[in-house]
Amino acid sequence: MSNVPDNPMTRPRYTGIPTFMRLPYAEDWSDLDIGLIGVPYDGGVTNRPGTRHGPRELRNQSSLTRTINQATGISPYELCRIADIGDAYIERPFSLEEAHQQIQGFFDGVVAAGLVPVSAGGDHSISLPILRALGKDRPVGMVHIDAHCDTGDDYLGSRFHHGAPFSRAVEEGVLDPKRTIQIGIRGGINDRDIWSFSHTSGMRVIYMHEVPAMGLDAIIAEAHRVVGDGPTYFTFDIDALDPAYAPGTGTPEIGGFTSLDGQRLIRGMTGIDFVGADLVEVSPPFDPSGNTALVGANLLFELLCVVAQATEKRKSE
Amino acid sequence: MSNVPDNPMTRPRYTGIPTFMRLPYAEDWSDLDIGLIGVPYDGGVTNRPGTRHGPRELRNQSSLTRTINQATGISPYELCRIADIGDAYIERPFSLEEAHQQIQGFFDGVVAAGLVPVSAGGDHSISLPILRALGKDRPVGMVHIDAHCDTGDDYLGSRFHHGAPFSRAVEEGVLDPKRTIQIGIRGGINDRDIWSFSHTSGMRVIYMHEVPAMGLDAIIAEAHRVVGDGPTYFTFDIDALDPAYAPGTGTPEIGGFTSLDGQRLIRGMTGIDFVGADLVEVSPPFDPSGNTALVGANLLFELLCVVAQATEKRKSE
Amino acid sequence: MSNVPDNPMTRPRYTGIPTFMRLPYAEDWSDLDIGLIGVPYDGGVTNRPGTRHGPRELRNQSSLTRTINQATGISPYELCRIADIGDAYIERPFSLEEAHQQIQGFFDGVVAAGLVPVSAGGDHSISLPILRALGKDRPVGMVHIDAHCDTGDDYLGSRFHHGAPFSRAVEEGVLDPKRTIQIGIRGGINDRDIWSFSHTSGMRVIYMHEVPAMGLDAIIAEAHRVVGDGPTYFTFDIDALDPAYAPGTGTPEIGGFTSLDGQRLIRGMTGIDFVGADLVEVSPPFDPSGNTALVGANLLFELLCVVAQATEKRKSE
Amino acid sequence: MSNVPDNPMTRPRYTGIPTFMRLPYAEDWSDLDIGLIGVPYDGGVTNRPGTRHGPRELRNQSSLTRTINQATGISPYELCRIADIGDAYIERPFSLEEAHQQIQGFFDGVVAAGLVPVSAGGDHSISLPILRALGKDRPVGMVHIDAHCDTGDDYLGSRFHHGAPFSRAVEEGVLDPKRTIQIGIRGGINDRDIWSFSHTSGMRVIYMHEVPAMGLDAIIAEAHRVVGDGPTYFTFDIDALDPAYAPGTGTPEIGGFTSLDGQRLIRGMTGIDFVGADLVEVSPPFDPSGNTALVGANLLFELLCVVAQATEKRKSE
Amino acid sequence: MSNVPDNPMTRPRYTGIPTFMRLPYAEDWSDLDIGLIGVPYDGGVTNRPGTRHGPRELRNQSSLTRTINQATGISPYELCRIADIGDAYIERPFSLEEAHQQIQGFFDGVVAAGLVPVSAGGDHSISLPILRALGKDRPVGMVHIDAHCDTGDDYLGSRFHHGAPFSRAVEEGVLDPKRTIQIGIRGGINDRDIWSFSHTSGMRVIYMHEVPAMGLDAIIAEAHRVVGDGPTYFTFDIDALDPAYAPGTGTPEIGGFTSLDGQRLIRGMTGIDFVGADLVEVSPPFDPSGNTALVGANLLFELLCVVAQATEKRKSE
Amino acid sequence: MSNVPDNPMTRPRYTGIPTFMRLPYAEDWSDLDIGLIGVPYDGGVTNRPGTRHGPRELRNQSSLTRTINQATGISPYELCRIADIGDAYIERPFSLEEAHQQIQGFFDGVVAAGLVPVSAGGDHSISLPILRALGKDRPVGMVHIDAHCDTGDDYLGSRFHHGAPFSRAVEEGVLDPKRTIQIGIRGGINDRDIWSFSHTSGMRVIYMHEVPAMGLDAIIAEAHRVVGDGPTYFTFDIDALDPAYAPGTGTPEIGGFTSLDGQRLIRGMTGIDFVGADLVEVSPPFDPSGNTALVGANLLFELLCVVAQATEKRKSE
Repeated sequence: MSNVPDNPMTRPRYTGIPTFMRLPYAEDWSDLDIGLIGVPYDGGVTNRPGTRHGPRELRNQSSLTRTINQATGISPYELCRIADIGDAYIERPFSLEEAHQQIQGFFDGVVAAGLVPVSAGGDHSISLPILRALGKDRPVGMVHIDAHCDTGDDYLGSRFHHGAPFSRAVEEGVLDPKRTIQIGIRGGINDRDIWSFSHTSGMRVIYMHEVPAMGLDAIIAEAHRVVGDGPTYFTFDIDALDPAYAPGTGTPEIGGFTSLDGQRLIRGMTGIDFVGADLVEVSPPFDPSGNTALVGANLLFELLCVVAQATEKRKSE
Repeated sequence: MSNVPDNPMTRPRYTGIPTFMRLPYAEDWSDLDIGLIGVPYDGGVTNRPGTRHGPRELRNQSSLTRTINQATGISPYELCRIADIGDAYIERPFSLEEAHQQIQGFFDGVVAAGLVPVSAGGDHSISLPILRALGKDRPVGMVHIDAHCDTGDDYLGSRFHHGAPFSRAVEEGVLDPKRTIQIGIRGGINDRDIWSFSHTSGMRVIYMHEVPAMGLDAIIAEAHRVVGDGPTYFTFDIDALDPAYAPGTGTPEIGGFTSLDGQRLIRGMTGIDFVGADLVEVSPPFDPSGNTALVGANLLFELLCVVAQATEKRKSE
Repeated sequence: MSNVPDNPMTRPRYTGIPTFMRLPYAEDWSDLDIGLIGVPYDGGVTNRPGTRHGPRELRNQSSLTRTINQATGISPYELCRIADIGDAYIERPFSLEEAHQQIQGFFDGVVAAGLVPVSAGGDHSISLPILRALGKDRPVGMVHIDAHCDTGDDYLGSRFHHGAPFSRAVEEGVLDPKRTIQIGIRGGINDRDIWSFSHTSGMRVIYMHEVPAMGLDAIIAEAHRVVGDGPTYFTFDIDALDPAYAPGTGTPEIGGFTSLDGQRLIRGMTGIDFVGADLVEVSPPFDPSGNTALVGANLLFELLCVVAQATEKRKSE
Repeated sequence: MSNVPDNPMTRPRYTGIPTFMRLPYAEDWSDLDIGLIGVPYDGGVTNRPGTRHGPRELRNQSSLTRTINQATGISPYELCRIADIGDAYIERPFSLEEAHQQIQGFFDGVVAAGLVPVSAGGDHSISLPILRALGKDRPVGMVHIDAHCDTGDDYLGSRFHHGAPFSRAVEEGVLDPKRTIQIGIRGGINDRDIWSFSHTSGMRVIYMHEVPAMGLDAIIAEAHRVVGDGPTYFTFDIDALDPAYAPGTGTPEIGGFTSLDGQRLIRGMTGIDFVGADLVEVSPPFDPSGNTALVGANLLFELLCVVAQATEKRKSE
Repeated sequence: MSNVPDNPMTRPRYTGIPTFMRLPYAEDWSDLDIGLIGVPYDGGVTNRPGTRHGPRELRNQSSLTRTINQATGISPYELCRIADIGDAYIERPFSLEEAHQQIQGFFDGVVAAGLVPVSAGGDHSISLPILRALGKDRPVGMVHIDAHCDTGDDYLGSRFHHGAPFSRAVEEGVLDPKRTIQIGIRGGINDRDIWSFSHTSGMRVIYMHEVPAMGLDAIIAEAHRVVGDGPTYFTFDIDALDPAYAPGTGTPEIGGFTSLDGQRLIRGMTGIDFVGADLVEVSPPFDPSGNTALVGANLLFELLCVVAQATEKRKSE
Repeated sequence: MSNVPDNPMTRPRYTGIPTFMRLPYAEDWSDLDIGLIGVPYDGGVTNRPGTRHGPRELRNQSSLTRTINQATGISPYELCRIADIGDAYIERPFSLEEAHQQIQGFFDGVVAAGLVPVSAGGDHSISLPILRALGKDRPVGMVHIDAHCDTGDDYLGSRFHHGAPFSRAVEEGVLDPKRTIQIGIRGGINDRDIWSFSHTSGMRVIYMHEVPAMGLDAIIAEAHRVVGDGPTYFTFDIDALDPAYAPGTGTPEIGGFTSLDGQRLIRGMTGIDFVGADLVEVSPPFDPSGNTALVGANLLFELLCVVAQATEKRKSE
């Protein structure tokens, strides 16, 4: 009865208080496997802001998702106990590093409660405090779909902005670069070595201009090879999609994936041992039609499917 | 501690799950005085639809309201115990009359629980089932701010559409026309006697073209005179405002009130014995900037203030 | 039966092929008193284009008008035989002067058929060829509501752009400056003598910054005094309204009239012997909410009311 | 001379009264082969409304279509006599079943007059009364391009909503499931057997997740095989396209076809014996850029091409 | 020749590189009296971000301003040498206090060069570093038009956010509260003493709910009385206007001034010894029609007029 | 130091005065190789206007481009000296032919100064005066990516509108049709011989419906074959892209290229001896999300890359 989305067969989709996927909002986490979490923070952006409003719109549009993935047959709600567990509130938004500490505090609690987090950003800088919580005991691998490697360094006076979380995560020992694959990288650059951290640390980088010749199936196979059997994080930056599909984002880069590509890539990752996931960089103020949040909510459901399968598998072992 | 909006001093306004006014969502109504209710139904419209999405956007924008009315000093949360008690779900949306029965069923429960309802529409046809619940024992008076009298008759095959709820309410004995005032009426008409029901039943009608000469203070005084001391309902149709202020509505009529006028009119009704209120006809699909829902959420707060004062007064008597 | 708008009591407003006011489209003009005409031309603009799309959107939004003016009691359709007689097609849009000749040709035909034209622009340059047709035999007076006097001179190589039609009309003897009043003039200027033509030719100019002290009633009285009993044209530039009310226009000037002001000004002109009218400068591409076209369609109905009254009076004399 | 779209070589596209394809509006149907029809009804939707405004915007955007299909060489206006024959007016919009009866009444007249209908919705529930008129004498086959099978059952108290017309059509004997193909099905589901009616009745269902591997050519071949030589209806739900191409619709599902795919699919159906077609679910209030109506109008032209060819072939036999 | 806006009589308004008012961009400040400055910073906001994009859109829309104020006859370009001197670049946007130091550094240079700054924000927190530069030698008085007093205190961990600059400015001795007037204050509050700093420090506060009875002329007179003859700063927060006029802002409050009110208030301040001015809180991402930036650019021109007059007066003394 | 874009590593992208690519604005052309030029003119359009506002929005969005093409490794700023050299001002916008003369005058100056022009329109008619300047001494070849051949003839009274520049260019001897390739042609047509000029003059036309079977690589090879080694112009009409990618244009045609296709096509032209390029038909009023200008700015950067390479090669020979 609980931990199941509101049934649209009796309660139309446009009704009710918008939680993620129309799930119950849970303050008691004791009987949960997976927590859906909003991280309304955009203090790490380097250009257009607005992703602080992302979780709210993703919740809103997620009322259009349903319970079973028609393409894969997976229903996450049959596999795991899932709830919307609210937002990682940021009470110190005026300082990037303090905000990250607060986010990490929330996720430390999630991990301590034995929950697998599936999060909605927020800008990409939020993945760093999440990884700090998840990778505390051992570095995790990562499937990373994005237009940018986000392995930059100091920029506008900080090393913790949304273009650099994964350099920091590797340096802090919470992310294993050898088990990390980055897919869809493109756009102009100001420095030929902008992503040298990715290459020198051993990450596998697949550029967008390689995709037409390589094909999605080969990319998926390569991802499985790179991350292997170990615990893995899945991070999907909505700007991996072309701005025709996802205009509402802070650093749009033309020439990206379609949303069908995005779905196929996520579905192809089924079987990897995911210990968490996030969908970031949805910026509602730049999304007049609401389409970016709609795509984001659907991809969040796809992420939930692969995470739920991995979680159920770990439970049953 | 409970029944108080989330504090934006620690939790920024853009965070959290959007309930009305950031109040707790209450399934247990036992300790409440006032319930904020969504009525996501637009099956009674005669032109542009979309108000079914109104409650959701009003909840969303209501996160910008605060706890104290700076102009009047009233804080409804200090006077009464208030919560978001969810939506009057409509499980039979394809039949206007069945939908109204379901809405009435919800409000019968509200009345039975001793709650004062403050509702967010939905189209104006929803006021009829609400009045049926509130006026069951004796007809109520009404302050009605709107561009249209909504005392029409059969139209497109029904007598229950959003242009006729108050004819039906009078006929059914739940609304007292002698204690009803309608303010802001305007727009073209197709029949010189379109609002004859209002006039022949004894309602006091103030047309918009009378407003510049009459002034708001005289209108407010007249409202107090008309409704007197008895139990009174307050219904505010957002199309009373000019479309420059509230474009997102189904039947916009130019030449209307400003939102400051709207605030002053509601504040002026302080002291009337309100037993319920609604704010209707916000249609988000026709509201690209979100401004209509913002205005609507603020006017809903103003309504809550005058209703809370009346409720507190009844409690203390 | 004919020459009456489609009845929304049986055919909902959102249905049917959008003619002006849901009137029949008439190719046979023999039984008509008034013709509603689109003039889809914006080749005279000096800044933002788009009014070529105005007639279509005005037709579209005019389905929200009705048959009787609730404020004045006038129903134009009871007084006169009225139809949508189509567009003054411009087959030579690439040359401003040739386009004006074509527009004039259309209106020469309208005048020859004994019809009173009520037109929807297009940019304000279209009033010149209309006046050429209407003022052929004797100059007409004019009520002109606008943010700009439009009595400029050569600009960007032409004397026929939308900022100068009324200088040309006076010079050509089709407009009587002594019987012309211009209301609502405002905005920055680049030349202190920009409107010297208005002043030296004897037009009465009422600036917006004079309006708060003067009041609408005094302005209306002054208009009646200026134009007197003679044949008079009515031209309403939508940019007379504040951009909050009418953002979709080519040369917006803040600090303008409300739409209620606009309605009151037009209604106040009842009794003047109008021989034609136009509503110009609605630019749909700059009107994301459609509100400007909605306001324009309603003001076009107000113009139709005062023109119909004058036409009926002439017929009955 | 008649039954040809207004020529933009002399009358620019943005001029005139917007009928479908700038064709004449015909009240006399005696000399026509094909009628373009609006069905402005959205009382069957289960989520976002607005398609009642579809016919108007499709007419508006259809002024951008031209007379000859450059890819196939077909000009429908050379093959058949075609006109805009107006809207199937719904005078009882408040009752789903009564509205369907009225729509059917209009189409019964169309069939009686020997016209082939090409219709613009409205929500997908309108296909049921159309099929009742077209399949009265014998069931028709169907090419159905959509994100949803629309073969559901009772939902929110009705079996006639826009997710179920084709179950009803089969049950009523007006649609032959063995000669029906459904293409593009996708999106989450709440019930694993949601489309069991399609499968058990013998319809051929091609899911979107099968499309990349199958390819468009194979799908087209399969459609020809399934429907064979018999009389066939063509229904195209705009939500078959990805929301990047068609955001303005009531039940958007990401991961859909491109508009080029849509064109190629329709063109590939040339040669099938089509007896009618519709393009449904364009919802202008959710279409801020107008792009969905633009795509819809172009696909309506593509449908007109294949229907005109079939109609001409039947005439010449 | 220089320090004059590009002439639209030869170069249309939509052409050229958008500087403020189409003025030359000056890197050499030696011959200037007034510098127009962008301050693209929104790191101090407490709710909706986006004002970092304000200067760009204000520059863009300012191409619609002209050289002479038609209402007052003032041409700032005849009185003073004025240029766009670029942006106060913020190279440390991730720390609120460091960003303020950088802004102050820029304005220290402006003051050292003898320039009077007229600035475009950015959020209201930028007024603090500007006042630090302007009030270094002695506190300045202030005319402050806004929906909020912005004299708050610690909030979300900082005392330097956009709701508190003027408390800090008083404490730091750069603003004289006795010579400060705040006009238009309104909106809900969470603390009855939220603006106690204004009251206890001796600022004159005029609430919006006092405005209808008081009238604009009395407010203007009161402002002159309060600030007297001393050096005075003028700060105009666009949220002083009603959201119907200025929806694109971070903390909209309904029931505000019209843009005509805004113009009249600024014009009424002519004669005060202004030493600088700013127009803040224009947030383009929340401004789909661009109207807020248009209003803002026009009010910036009004501010420039009164500042130029004061500057010219000081020069000539 | 000069002729390099403003560095976003110290000056965030949203700051500064928007020139093309954040390059310096240069009035002194003596040290330049390539000039980026705006041509804000839309007097040649046959349907929707608005491209006069194109250069401004392209400058605005171009702040999101960077210095190095990540896919090809080319940095145009390392190869050539490049600046924004302003707009080809049109002082006679009311006459199509005079406007073209003024545009040509500007480009004659560009050619005389030895600059290679890379231009941003404006409508496609501007390519004619540019070609007149570039092809004065000998006809140039052309790579032309577009939905339309633009080799029409007289239309609406002119032979110089945006659907005919290349017929005129061939007739005037400034364009070599044998060395011209046109890619992406599609959409309905009103005349089977509409593009006969292309075919009879010897241009190579690749229709969109041939593209899926042909593939991008074969198209690129064919382009190299057709244009050969001679001097070549590159013109990219944004309507070559599907309206999902570029809705903001005057003559949208569904079924077009993706932006990734557009990038791949331009990159594939590397090695051709380009002597100039333009990107035309971006119409901001029809682009609510700003996405079309974003795509346009990125494709302008891609064009700059291939032009810079050709320019550098000529310099070093």
